Amino acid sequence: MRLHSPILSSLAYHRIISSFRPISSLQRPADVIAPMATSEDSLRRALAEKQSTIDASGNAIRQLKSSGASKTDIDEAVKALNALKLEKTSIETQLKASISGDANGSVLSREAFRQAVVNTLERRLFYIPSFKIYRGVAGLYDYGPPGCAVKSNVLSFWRQHFVLEEDMLEVDCPCVTPEVVLKASGHVDKFTDLMVKDEKTGTCYRADHLLKDHCKDKLEKDLTITSEKAAELKHILAVLDDLSAEQLGAKIKEYGIVAPDTKNPLSDPYPFNLMFQTSIGPSGVSPGYMRPETAQGIFVNFKDLYYYNGNKLPFAAAQIGQAFRNEISPRQGLLRVREFTLAEIEHFVDPDDKSHPKYSEVENLNFLMFPRDLQMSGHSAQNLRLGEAVSKGIVNNQTLAYFIGRVYLFLTQLGIDKKRLRFRQHLPNEMAHYAADCWDAEIESSYGWIECVGIADRSAYDLRAHTDKSGVALVAQEKFAQPKEVEKLVITPIKKELGLAFKGNQKMVVEALEAMSEKEAMEMKGGLETKGEVEFEVCTLSKTVTVTKKMVTISKEKKKEHQRVFTPSVIEPSFGIGRIIYCLYEHSFHTRPSKAGDEQLNYFSFPPLVAPIKCTVFPLVQNQQYEQVANTISRSLTAVGISNKKDITGTSIGKRYARTDELGVPFAVTVDSTSSVTIRERDSKDQIRVSVDEVAAVVKEVSEGRATWDQISKKYPAHTSASADE
Amino acid sequence: MRLHSPILSSLAYHRIISSFRPISSLQRPADVIAPMATSEDSLRRALAEKQSTIDASGNAIRQLKSSGASKTDIDEAVKALNALKLEKTSIETQLKASISGDANGSVLSREAFRQAVVNTLERRLFYIPSFKIYRGVAGLYDYGPPGCAVKSNVLSFWRQHFVLEEDMLEVDCPCVTPEVVLKASGHVDKFTDLMVKDEKTGTCYRADHLLKDHCKDKLEKDLTITSEKAAELKHILAVLDDLSAEQLGAKIKEYGIVAPDTKNPLSDPYPFNLMFQTSIGPSGVSPGYMRPETAQGIFVNFKDLYYYNGNKLPFAAAQIGQAFRNEISPRQGLLRVREFTLAEIEHFVDPDDKSHPKYSEVENLNFLMFPRDLQMSGHSAQNLRLGEAVSKGIVNNQTLAYFIGRVYLFLTQLGIDKKRLRFRQHLPNEMAHYAADCWDAEIESSYGWIECVGIADRSAYDLRAHTDKSGVALVAQEKFAQPKEVEKLVITPIKKELGLAFKGNQKMVVEALEAMSEKEAMEMKGGLETKGEVEFEVCTLSKTVTVTKKMVTISKEKKKEHQRVFTPSVIEPSFGIGRIIYCLYEHSFHTRPSKAGDEQLNYFSFPPLVAPIKCTVFPLVQNQQYEQVANTISRSLTAVGISNKKDITGTSIGKRYARTDELGVPFAVTVDSTSSVTIRERDSKDQIRVSVDEVAAVVKEVSEGRATWDQISKKYPAHTSASADE
Repeated sequence: MRLHSPILSSLAYHRIISSFRPISSLQRPADVIAPMATSEDSLRRALAEKQSTIDASGNAIRQLKSSGASKTDIDEAVKALNALKLEKTSIETQLKASISGDANGSVLSREAFRQAVVNTLERRLFYIPSFKIYRGVAGLYDYGPPGCAVKSNVLSFWRQHFVLEEDMLEVDCPCVTPEVVLKASGHVDKFTDLMVKDEKTGTCYRADHLLKDHCKDKLEKDLTITSEKAAELKHILAVLDDLSAEQLGAKIKEYGIVAPDTKNPLSDPYPFNLMFQTSIGPSGVSPGYMRPETAQGIFVNFKDLYYYNGNKLPFAAAQIGQAFRNEISPRQGLLRVREFTLAEIEHFVDPDDKSHPKYSEVENLNFLMFPRDLQMSGHSAQNLRLGEAVSKGIVNNQTLAYFIGRVYLFLTQLGIDKKRLRFRQHLPNEMAHYAADCWDAEIESSYGWIECVGIADRSAYDLRAHTDKSGVALVAQEKFAQPKEVEKLVITPIKKELGLAFKGNQKMVVEALEAMSEKEAMEMKGGLETKGEVEFEVCTLSKTVTVTKKMVTISKEKKKEHQRVFTPSVIEPSFGIGRIIYCLYEHSFHTRPSKAGDEQLNYFSFPPLVAPIKCTVFPLVQNQQYEQVANTISRSLTAVGISNKKDITGTSIGKRYARTDELGVPFAVTVDSTSSVTIRERDSKDQIRVSVDEVAAVVKEVSEGRATWDQISKKYPAHTSASADE
Repeated sequence: MRLHSPILSSLAYHRIISSFRPISSLQRPADVIAPMATSEDSLRRALAEKQSTIDASGNAIRQLKSSGASKTDIDEAVKALNALKLEKTSIETQLKASISGDANGSVLSREAFRQAVVNTLERRLFYIPSFKIYRGVAGLYDYGPPGCAVKSNVLSFWRQHFVLEEDMLEVDCPCVTPEVVLKASGHVDKFTDLMVKDEKTGTCYRADHLLKDHCKDKLEKDLTITSEKAAELKHILAVLDDLSAEQLGAKIKEYGIVAPDTKNPLSDPYPFNLMFQTSIGPSGVSPGYMRPETAQGIFVNFKDLYYYNGNKLPFAAAQIGQAFRNEISPRQGLLRVREFTLAEIEHFVDPDDKSHPKYSEVENLNFLMFPRDLQMSGHSAQNLRLGEAVSKGIVNNQTLAYFIGRVYLFLTQLGIDKKRLRFRQHLPNEMAHYAADCWDAEIESSYGWIECVGIADRSAYDLRAHTDKSGVALVAQEKFAQPKEVEKLVITPIKKELGLAFKGNQKMVVEALEAMSEKEAMEMKGGLETKGEVEFEVCTLSKTVTVTKKMVTISKEKKKEHQRVFTPSVIEPSFGIGRIIYCLYEHSFHTRPSKAGDEQLNYFSFPPLVAPIKCTVFPLVQNQQYEQVANTISRSLTAVGISNKKDITGTSIGKRYARTDELGVPFAVTVDSTSSVTIRERDSKDQIRVSVDEVAAVVKEVSEGRATWDQISKKYPAHTSASADE
């Protein structure tokens, strides 16, 4: 069974449905499936050989000494040994380089880059570890003022780009969810990760994390392991998510893995449900959970939404909201958290017609795609035209492709770097049996390629699950313009005969006969007509019975039907908003030298759409007249809905620019006269002169994307004062 | 202790801090404090007198009969008795009218109105009972597509009106909150309601609700109760929230109240904590709760936010987010729910200077205010100029008044009826001891006056509570331009002397001496100087000791101070978004006759700002050319961010207008040519002709409030075709 919402998904969820890869370049399919890099392999062998040569040569020297050989001979031998040791060191260095090269670029520089980004984000309050004064809680973060504004801008754009432009039905459902709903969806039974406990202190760890850390550590730090051992460890990393509790436990025992903090022994692995549990109402008899995804709220409302849409397909519903996962031990900062904002779309469509009316608007988009075949054959992602991927059958259908295209446009318009964005198709073993196709938008960050949006064709699974559990039919009807004649299979068990033959077992045989598929029934019909009787397996009786011609009639009848009733398929794009925002921070973060060249200044190159503050306003010098003009401009910007900040401190204009660049503010208005002012653009540092009356309109136009800076800067005189910048 | 966020607050929260009135006109202070209406009182007396006359007269007839009186005499007496009974019926009718008049207008018509609103809201999916296919969960509701759009519009306007225009620092904190935070705020210990259980079935009820229902029922339906009994029941309703568990239990016993569903006996009342509890992480040793309000997330971040604001006061932080309260038995539909959206502001200010720089912008606003004095003297709310309320000392300070004014503007711009909006001051017993002043924005609905926004000056309470619990000083500094000379009290215990005198108790005496207030210390100094020794109570020793002149020196020293360190006061406007939206629905709901006059049509008169869809577009007749024009217009509206809906069904134009009016869509574009179209305004039903190219710009202008319909309709020719409307 495949659970929902790939975003921030749990091990179990992937275990059951095999659709997971924790965020780690080591576990990316291409890395995993490709055989171990030859250089690493041969270096490990060379190292082992060199070591045995060194050992042999050491023994030889000891023998020379004990046999009283000449000093010259001994010195010669020692010199040779030292040369061997130098060679060994050189191989070790190459091996280390090879291993870190395997982790895709320099690990150190990626970590230094991440540290620089995170430092800036924390210092400027883009985010704050939650409940910091109480030492915080792992996996919980606050958005501070600029982070909150970025989030709000991303969500507004999401609403414009998806809800408004695609005419979706947005809903807003509670986070508190009764057990029955999550029982139907499978979360109560299967939304688990495997956990081990420190047997003495009770501290909990994710079993797969411990095994993964052990393997990675060995591979990266222990140069003495044999090439075969290295291959074994790499294999474990590759299949980590497919290991059962027993297999994980056996490996933990075999490798002697202990609790990392105390070195105490560990318990066997056992499943831990990742939902935050609570109780609804005071009686204590109504268990509830904080929803692990928003999708279920849409599915349970299908009937009402279908009615609202005039009983017509296709249509999409959307929801933005909080989701909760009680991670065993959250790691990787803002990427794996216990509470996060999801934006999910459920597009309901006739399973017999997955074309999309606006498909032509996206089919010529060209971007990095990573289909199954490329992954399996060890290649990298390639640029593909979306239309070609559909026509070649790589992407299953037009509607799925349409959403892939729209997600691409959404992410790149936010400021995600096209070169570090790819759409990766799930491998067959990653998908549920019922899923038609599934693609993840992955963004490359200092943590590797991160799954940020999942786009899945989940067929009719979810609506059927809730139909079964609730007894309410979540179906659509297609009314035929004219009644259609259809052939219907009719199976009529003759109960009298069956009763005589099977007595108390009659009911089970009748049910089994009625449950036959069309193919089975037609085979039986053939058998009965030719041989008069057939053998028939009744599962509920665990045996085979003999069915004769008298016991059942099977026929095909023609019937007139006025409509077709069916369960719609659902195509689900699911967005991890926090992950997208974090990747956006990394892609927007740059440094450049100050004018004096004495320091490196950070800046975020957010597009105006995303920037937390669109414009800063400051008087060039502290002066009442200029401050009044600054106030007027600030008020007029606010009145037209443009977020802005005044900076009336007396610090140098360069320092004030640096401050505002570090928040990613795209435009800065400097008041240096009472009639006209300068507007500076962050990335180019170009400045133009605009009259005070026009400032708000100009900044609004360029902030809302109705004009580019290039267009604007051609309309107004450039400003090239020496006092500008730094 | 006074907990947070008056919105949707619990009984306990009010019990402890006496600041509550459940939503019920019967319990509005004016109703409660005013003596029982004379007419009701005298009618009850008249009814009782009439009943005893009837009883006497019945007895007399029985005597006549048994004494064998003449038929004429008996008939005469029976006739008189029947006349008395008629008079009794007449008094009963008057009494019933008086009682329902007392509940402020006809209860029946208010309920019929509410039912009409709620039916429309449910039918058009403004909201949906959550998890409906699983029979729902009390107190949980989904916002369907139009409701979700209204909510999103209200929140956008809130951000523009408060965050942007007041330059607030918006934050976004998790819902999952560790216990320590809510222990500090007082919620873990005190956020409770009193509950009783059906002793046989275990069903839970709110104790105060049962008592309230009993009293209301008696008062409204039992006409035989005496005037004294009626007064007693009314008194209970008035003091309901001040009753202890014991008092509530005693009343429930006295009145013989049983479980309403089963008539089983009830348990004694006991407190039930209203927070949804959960566990953070897998160990089970870190209890957490779903936050009952958003405010605490701001308080714990005070230090970072103060730094972000350049270490300057005043500043405000804001947060919009979900809050959770596990109500014992939610009633009153959308007004008392278990999960809801709060928007809260914490404005931090120097306690010595609560002036507000923008006060002059609101001081001339004039609206319904309901100060303490008017409530206590049984009067109604009155129109007051805000500035007058401040200058007369009715509103405590300028900043509090500024927010009252801003809240008034916010609510009325959303479409709340000014005549059904009042600002009610908390009575002294409703406020915490530390609160300076507190006002609720109350909106009148079919449920009575509903508390929708609370605006409280909470002094330094919250920051101090978290300072104490966390050990992190949440304070502000005021740097003096020039060092100030201040007198400081210096208490120096002479430890050697104290040790000799008190031996092992020395430490306690030293601590007690050092902890003296300035007043106590100066009294001791006086005593020591005049008498040489004083009696001194040491609480930790539970006794009084004799302190002599040699044991301590007390002096006042002059010190130079460079700054003042203090805990800021906080002024907190807290908005119950769901309640505001529900009241808005009621205030916007109207009916008007169809053109044919054969039916009543509903419409919502939402201002464009709030309307879920700004514009519908439909071809006058089904026709490919017109449909293409409709598509073009719809796309151009979407491109400029104006939500719109096409209606290409073949139904009559009148029906389509009715459909769109019922969703509160303010503008409808009808395509009746390929060059120009009509735009109709919902409330006036007026139409203008506008060229196809201009439609999007015109609708955007009037939807975003940059022009009024009046202004627009003067610029374009009126359209008066016979085909218009209905």
